[in-house]
Amino acid sequence: MQVIKDISTLREAVRELPRPVGFVPTMGYLHEGHLSLARAARQACASVVVSIFVNPSQFGPNEDFSRYPRDLERDQRFLSEVPVDIIWTPDNLTMYPEDYQTWISVEKVAAPLEGKMRPGHFRGVATIVAKLFNCVQPDRVYFGQKDAQQVRVIQQMIRDLNFPLDMIVCPTARESDGLAMSSRNVYLNAEERKAAPVLYRALQNARRRFDEGERNADILRKQIETEIQTEPLASIQYVSIADADTLEELRVIKKDALISLAVFFGKTRLIDNIRLEIAPRK
Amino acid sequence: MQVIKDISTLREAVRELPRPVGFVPTMGYLHEGHLSLARAARQACASVVVSIFVNPSQFGPNEDFSRYPRDLERDQRFLSEVPVDIIWTPDNLTMYPEDYQTWISVEKVAAPLEGKMRPGHFRGVATIVAKLFNCVQPDRVYFGQKDAQQVRVIQQMIRDLNFPLDMIVCPTARESDGLAMSSRNVYLNAEERKAAPVLYRALQNARRRFDEGERNADILRKQIETEIQTEPLASIQYVSIADADTLEELRVIKKDALISLAVFFGKTRLIDNIRLEIAPRK
Repeated sequence: MQVIKDISTLREAVRELPRPVGFVPTMGYLHEGHLSLARAARQACASVVVSIFVNPSQFGPNEDFSRYPRDLERDQRFLSEVPVDIIWTPDNLTMYPEDYQTWISVEKVAAPLEGKMRPGHFRGVATIVAKLFNCVQPDRVYFGQKDAQQVRVIQQMIRDLNFPLDMIVCPTARESDGLAMSSRNVYLNAEERKAAPVLYRALQNARRRFDEGERNADILRKQIETEIQTEPLASIQYVSIADADTLEELRVIKKDALISLAVFFGKTRLIDNIRLEIAPRK
Repeated sequence: MQVIKDISTLREAVRELPRPVGFVPTMGYLHEGHLSLARAARQACASVVVSIFVNPSQFGPNEDFSRYPRDLERDQRFLSEVPVDIIWTPDNLTMYPEDYQTWISVEKVAAPLEGKMRPGHFRGVATIVAKLFNCVQPDRVYFGQKDAQQVRVIQQMIRDLNFPLDMIVCPTARESDGLAMSSRNVYLNAEERKAAPVLYRALQNARRRFDEGERNADILRKQIETEIQTEPLASIQYVSIADADTLEELRVIKKDALISLAVFFGKTRLIDNIRLEIAPRK
């Protein structure tokens, strides 16, 4: 397992790897969700590259860039157990040299939800992901369903800009009580941590009601909000039921839908989502 | 020589080509400038791909997209004489399918000059060029110095987004009277055509004065404007003397500079440029 910092060494090392090359871009402080991506890549690809880069351009000015958790030694230990072939850990000046000035914007699917709450977030995500793709030149890239809108934005960018690679989306990894794994869970204090599983319970109960035939999105949204509000530590930012493809809010669920939400526990903002499928999967 | 329309056939055909692959993106209606790029690629690369696509997203609403000259048969004949390996001629819906929504913006170097006169132009250029790069995946790409700011914008995009390729810039091809070759020269009537070489004469006279020691950009700008204004059919849009790297306007020329201009002859807008080099070339 090589740990590489600069781009030219990375390119040379990737050139030596057997194809197909699977790539997992991360911001580090890895958890089981990241590792499930790396293992999926390991299983399907001849080689696996993981990047670790806390991308400043996807954080807003009042967000948690500087305190975002970092622990490269721990990350390396975890990845050596997958194992992966290359860990790439570029620094800020490598990715954003002085006079950097090129940005990729995805429009419609990046506009609502996280895009609305975090202006500029998806511009930063799309741009860094394109840069990472061009540096690694992988055959397959792995992302987690946890960041559902990110998945949709990157899928759109890959399609629109004709990136020559396949995107694989892996299920959200969860703690035993249902809380979606996130590097940000470390911010939660004991009480907030205990309260946070309400999100997944509310999502599951909405799915149950959907499975029983409820198609009115307003009723399902209301049910989720009410259930989350039973938890005094939770403060809802949004609960959305949207078309899974366009991410436009729905009143009636006639096609595949995405239920997604952002909820504060204290200062910590958590997101989670589930998909509702109308037609049985092929 | 294969002529290919769709992207998957293109990718398969490129995969069979010996490397390095040189790529010349064009909007067709080829002239000696384009052919000099294709020949430069032919000489330096094992394989040559030329694309022909009149990119709608780089034309403003009041510009000449619909009447831009097109003649694929003529273009094929010219390219068969280079010769090139693949001519790729995608159609609009291939490059911009329904629900297309991803755009690349280069900021500082795309802002002045053509970027100011043609809002959105370089967003369209950067986006289509990135798409073409991702479809062809060339090792080297060839552009003409004729579109000096375009060269600078694409160079910046390649650097910022880490495209894994080298950019080669070839000199402006000129008619025997000095007029820079352009597909748009066909718009000129006989009198305008006769008047148009004033642009290159004015640029050359400015260079002569620069070579004699003049470093005051205002004086040189004024000299160029005065000379162009002796031609009654010419209507100046801008004459710029800018830092060749940042494209910021200069008052005193202390580093390599770019003199560029846009001038109307009737309804036809012509651009041209020369570089002024302070230090002798390495």
